[in-house]
Amino acid sequence: MSSHSTHANPVLVVGSVALDSVETPFGKADEVLGGSGVYFSSSAAHFAPVQLVGVVGDDYPIESLQPLAAKGVNVAGLERASGSSFRWRGRYRHDLNSAETLETHLGVFSNFAPKIPEQFRSAPFVFLANIDPRLQLQVLEQVDKPRLVACDTMNFWIESRRPELLELLKHVDLITINDAEARQLTEHTNLVKAARWILDRGPKHVLIKKGEHGAFMFTNESVFFAPAYPLESVFDPTGAGDSFAGGFFGYLAATGDLSDQNMRRAVVVGSAMGSFAVEKFSNTRLLEITRSEIDARVQEFRQLVSFDAELVV
Amino acid sequence: MSSHSTHANPVLVVGSVALDSVETPFGKADEVLGGSGVYFSSSAAHFAPVQLVGVVGDDYPIESLQPLAAKGVNVAGLERASGSSFRWRGRYRHDLNSAETLETHLGVFSNFAPKIPEQFRSAPFVFLANIDPRLQLQVLEQVDKPRLVACDTMNFWIESRRPELLELLKHVDLITINDAEARQLTEHTNLVKAARWILDRGPKHVLIKKGEHGAFMFTNESVFFAPAYPLESVFDPTGAGDSFAGGFFGYLAATGDLSDQNMRRAVVVGSAMGSFAVEKFSNTRLLEITRSEIDARVQEFRQLVSFDAELVV
Repeated sequence: MSSHSTHANPVLVVGSVALDSVETPFGKADEVLGGSGVYFSSSAAHFAPVQLVGVVGDDYPIESLQPLAAKGVNVAGLERASGSSFRWRGRYRHDLNSAETLETHLGVFSNFAPKIPEQFRSAPFVFLANIDPRLQLQVLEQVDKPRLVACDTMNFWIESRRPELLELLKHVDLITINDAEARQLTEHTNLVKAARWILDRGPKHVLIKKGEHGAFMFTNESVFFAPAYPLESVFDPTGAGDSFAGGFFGYLAATGDLSDQNMRRAVVVGSAMGSFAVEKFSNTRLLEITRSEIDARVQEFRQLVSFDAELVV
Repeated sequence: MSSHSTHANPVLVVGSVALDSVETPFGKADEVLGGSGVYFSSSAAHFAPVQLVGVVGDDYPIESLQPLAAKGVNVAGLERASGSSFRWRGRYRHDLNSAETLETHLGVFSNFAPKIPEQFRSAPFVFLANIDPRLQLQVLEQVDKPRLVACDTMNFWIESRRPELLELLKHVDLITINDAEARQLTEHTNLVKAARWILDRGPKHVLIKKGEHGAFMFTNESVFFAPAYPLESVFDPTGAGDSFAGGFFGYLAATGDLSDQNMRRAVVVGSAMGSFAVEKFSNTRLLEITRSEIDARVQEFRQLVSFDAELVV
C-alpha cells in the first residue's frame, strides 16, 4: 500500500537490478537485492510512485521484489530474459571508503536494450541510472518530453563511451556524479571548475556526490552543500549514491517544485536517504524506515549545519 | 593600528615561527613567513589582540613581522636564539591535497622551551599550537587559570609523545586535530567514534579539520559541521588549519561568548579565514583582507548550507 499524495508525479527510472554479495568488517550478505534501479526505487518510493525499467535473468528471485511493489514501485517494465542475472561481489575494508570489486557478472544485463512500456512514456520525471550512455540515449528517444531528466554515470563509461556521454549531457537537465568521476570526466581537479565544465555542456544542475564528505549542487547561479550525516556506524556503503539520487528525485517529483529552495531541500532529503541506506545490508533499511524517521533525520541535518551568520563583534 | 573592541580578550598563542619554501602547481615562494604561530596570529588578530610566543634564529628577518605587529600581534614573547631559524620546504602536486615535505630544519626550534612573559600569563584565551606536548604542558604551568585552553597536535607527536599528549588532553578544554590524526590517535576509523574517544579524555569540544571537506565540532551534546568554502582556485594550502584555528579562537576571544550558538559561528569564522589563507602564498592574503570581506564570506557560508527543513509533502 502506498501513501503517496494523489498529486505526486511518477518517476521513471532505468537502471540495474542485480544480486549483490557483499563483505564488510561487520558481516556478509549473499545474493541480496542490489543494483542502481533497486536502491533508487526503494528510496524514491517513499515520496512518489516509481516506474522501474530493467532486466533480470530467469534465475532472479522475483518474489523478493514484492516489498518494493508493495511500496508503490511498478515493476511492469522489468524484463525477464533467459540467462543469468547481473551479479556483483564486493568487499569493503576497515575504512569503508571504497568498494573492492571481487567479481562482476553482467549476465543478461550485457544485452539489455531498455524498452519503455507505453504507459510509462509520459512520466514527467525520468532518471537514467548508471548504465551505458548509448542505452540512456535510447531511453530518451522513447519518452515524451519529460519535465526533468537526470542521469548518473561511472568511470567505466567515461573511459569507454566518452562521445556518447557528451551527447547525453546535451539532453539532460541534471547529472549526479561522484567527485572522482567528475574529475575524470572534466580533467579538472578543482570541483568548482569541474562543475562549471559540466554546466557548460548541457545540464542546468550538477550534483557532485562526495560519499562520507557530503554533496554539492551547482547551478550557474548558486552553490549548495549538504554534509553526509555523521553516523556512528556505517554498516554497508553499497547503494548510498543511488539511494541519495532516489530520495532527491522522488522528493522533487512529489512536490513538482523545481525552485532553488526546493531543490536544496531535495538534496537534504537525498542525503537523509543515503544515510539510512548504509545502516543495513541491501535495501533492508530503506524499506523499513517510516516517514517520521525521514522527517526527523532531515531536522537533524538542519541542526548539524545551523548557525547564525550575523557576527556580534 | 588595531581596530579591536576595547572589550576583546587577548589570545596567547605558543607556536612555530618559521621560514617556508613552497612549490605549488601555480608558483614558488622562497623563505616566506610561515609556521603555526604566524598563521594563527595573522588570522586571530582580525578579531582580538594576540600575544605570540615562539623562537626564531639570529638569521630571521625580524622586520618581516612588522605587518603582524601593526595588526595587533604583540611579539614581546618571541625569543631570538643564536642559530638558524626553523625552515620547512614542501611541495604540493596537482591535487593540492597533501603536502610533500622535502626538507625540515628545526634549527633553534629543537631546543625551544617556551617562556611566557609576565604580562602574558593572565591571558584568558590560550592556544597551544602544534608543538611537543611536553612544551604545551610547560606553557600551562606558566599561565593563570585561562578561561579557555585549546591545543593542536600532529602525527609526529601522536607517535612519539603519546603519554604526554594524553596527559595534555586532561588539561585542555578544546582540541583541533585533522581527520587522519584523529583516527591515528584514537584508533577509530569512524570520526564520530574518534570524537567520542577524545571527549572521554578531557576536552569538552573536539574540532576535527577535514581540509577541503570542511570541519566538525563535536561536544557531548551536539555536532556541528561547516563545509570548506568551494574556491575555484586554491593557490597554496599551507597554513589553512592554523588560520582556521586563529579565526575560530580570535572570534571566541573577541566575543567572550562560549555558548554553543556562538561557538558554531566561530567555526564558520575559522572556515572563512582558512579559505582566505589559501588564496595566496604565506600569510599575504590574511594580512590584506578587510573586515567587510570576512563578513561577506561568512554570509556566503550561510547561503552555501541554507535550506528549509520543513518538508512540504
